[in-house]
Amino acid sequence: MNPTAIGIDFGGTTVKFGVVEGAEIIARAPALTTKDYRDHEILLQAIRETVAELRRANPAVEAIGAGLPGIIDSVNGRVYQLSNVPGWEDVPLTALLEEWTGLPAAIDNDANAMAYAEWLYGAGREATNVVCVTLGTGVGGGLILDRKLYRGSQLGAGEIGQMMIDPDGPKGQYGNNGALEKYVGNFQIAERAQALYRDAGLTKSWEECSPLALETAARSGDRIAEQVWNEVGCAIAITLCNIVWLLNPDRIVVGGGVAKAGEYVFGPIRRVITERTMKVFHQDLTIVPAKLGNDAGIIGSAALALDKKAASSG
Amino acid sequence: MNPTAIGIDFGGTTVKFGVVEGAEIIARAPALTTKDYRDHEILLQAIRETVAELRRANPAVEAIGAGLPGIIDSVNGRVYQLSNVPGWEDVPLTALLEEWTGLPAAIDNDANAMAYAEWLYGAGREATNVVCVTLGTGVGGGLILDRKLYRGSQLGAGEIGQMMIDPDGPKGQYGNNGALEKYVGNFQIAERAQALYRDAGLTKSWEECSPLALETAARSGDRIAEQVWNEVGCAIAITLCNIVWLLNPDRIVVGGGVAKAGEYVFGPIRRVITERTMKVFHQDLTIVPAKLGNDAGIIGSAALALDKKAASSG
Repeated sequence: MNPTAIGIDFGGTTVKFGVVEGAEIIARAPALTTKDYRDHEILLQAIRETVAELRRANPAVEAIGAGLPGIIDSVNGRVYQLSNVPGWEDVPLTALLEEWTGLPAAIDNDANAMAYAEWLYGAGREATNVVCVTLGTGVGGGLILDRKLYRGSQLGAGEIGQMMIDPDGPKGQYGNNGALEKYVGNFQIAERAQALYRDAGLTKSWEECSPLALETAARSGDRIAEQVWNEVGCAIAITLCNIVWLLNPDRIVVGGGVAKAGEYVFGPIRRVITERTMKVFHQDLTIVPAKLGNDAGIIGSAALALDKKAASSG
Repeated sequence: MNPTAIGIDFGGTTVKFGVVEGAEIIARAPALTTKDYRDHEILLQAIRETVAELRRANPAVEAIGAGLPGIIDSVNGRVYQLSNVPGWEDVPLTALLEEWTGLPAAIDNDANAMAYAEWLYGAGREATNVVCVTLGTGVGGGLILDRKLYRGSQLGAGEIGQMMIDPDGPKGQYGNNGALEKYVGNFQIAERAQALYRDAGLTKSWEECSPLALETAARSGDRIAEQVWNEVGCAIAITLCNIVWLLNPDRIVVGGGVAKAGEYVFGPIRRVITERTMKVFHQDLTIVPAKLGNDAGIIGSAALALDKKAASSG
């Protein structure tokens, strides 16, 4: 039996748990909905209980890892800020997990955990330099460079959604006007679709402009939905071109809701990268959808925890 | 005595040679001017003779390295294309250097050699993640990530000058319209300065619009020269912001002619990066001019050759 670890995936609204062996989630616990808990102390208590239950049922577990969206200090094991969940200010989560379980623990940025899982077991396998971009409410990213997770000097690397595609574009949260996220976040896509439908004399609800609805619409020949996906693909591709010129990766993995639009979004991405980079940079570059879907966070967190354990014992 | 190596720096017009011990060039040979040689075979012969003379005078030399602008396969030691020098098509330069000298040899992209030298001995010292950008006729770059030279999957990484700052901007050589190089190459700077002077009713020669002349003009209070440098600094900074969001480096080293404009260009660079990135990304980031100047290519090539020797014997 391969080593197993618990992986915890903090999303914007839920916390998910799994026991992971290699690429497989061999057991799960019911997810927690963050808004059901009055404050972060009570949520932490619920996490503690869920972890304890998982361990009772899976006594062979050797480590525990968590991936979180926000400002995460993976070296010192502290959560400085958790996106969309108030109250998480300087929480020493690694120490808490170790104290609760007696197991070695590791925490990391959720995009790093996902990128690591895709590289180890998913769409990034066997590649040397992998750029992972995840499209959802926001746009995140993770980098595997020379076969190692690259975190950057303050552990902040991979903020692909904050890279500017038009420095004179819409106002950015950090002064980074025209950032990619302002064009391809789920909210911005819906807004753009509504505007295009409105120009065509059509009134569409917010739900009819979700990534999933727009994907269905594009497949049924809706030209406006196709146009939205083309614009989204082109916007992503501009940032990816810049990353390709800088890092010369051999794999780009695109995940998240938007990526489900398949060729409607991958077509323009591949076309623009071919048009706007030198041949040697794109001829051996593969651009593929993520494979592990919603499980990537759990699998990657568990893998990072097992790696940390191996590194500290070796 | 520390190990010594010969470093060869191929520029657009000259080939320079030095014997390097650590950060010091302890001996030099006269530079060759590429246009004095009818074809690349004759130039190679002249290089061979210069190297032989340097070795006779410095018998302790243990390795030989070369940095070249163009498409360089550092793994297989081949020069596929040499910028500005015709006839260099698939030249097995590493094998030739080894055959001529009996010493272990290494070749690399000139920007990589410069970045490596600045990191080991210059403005990038002690940093973990260093972005080097070199401004001249073109704009090149080199990356030190997690304390190692990062080359990318096809050894093409670091093409900072090809990154787009305005995808709708001036036509780029590889479809990459609005690439940084189209705004801050020496030629583009001179063109922009001439246009601004013309708008102000002034006729300025090409020489009066060189980086050096514009630096002198700015220092003597010329508002147009100041404006040119401000625009150049802002353009560079947009690309650097994107790199900061992606790689979260702790040091940015700016070299080449443009960098000599000092605060006229570093001021806007630092200001824009502070304005357009999150605090955690810029508060511990230092942005500094290169230190080794024209010697970086020789020193870096020699260091890479000694490293390769150490790695193959270890």
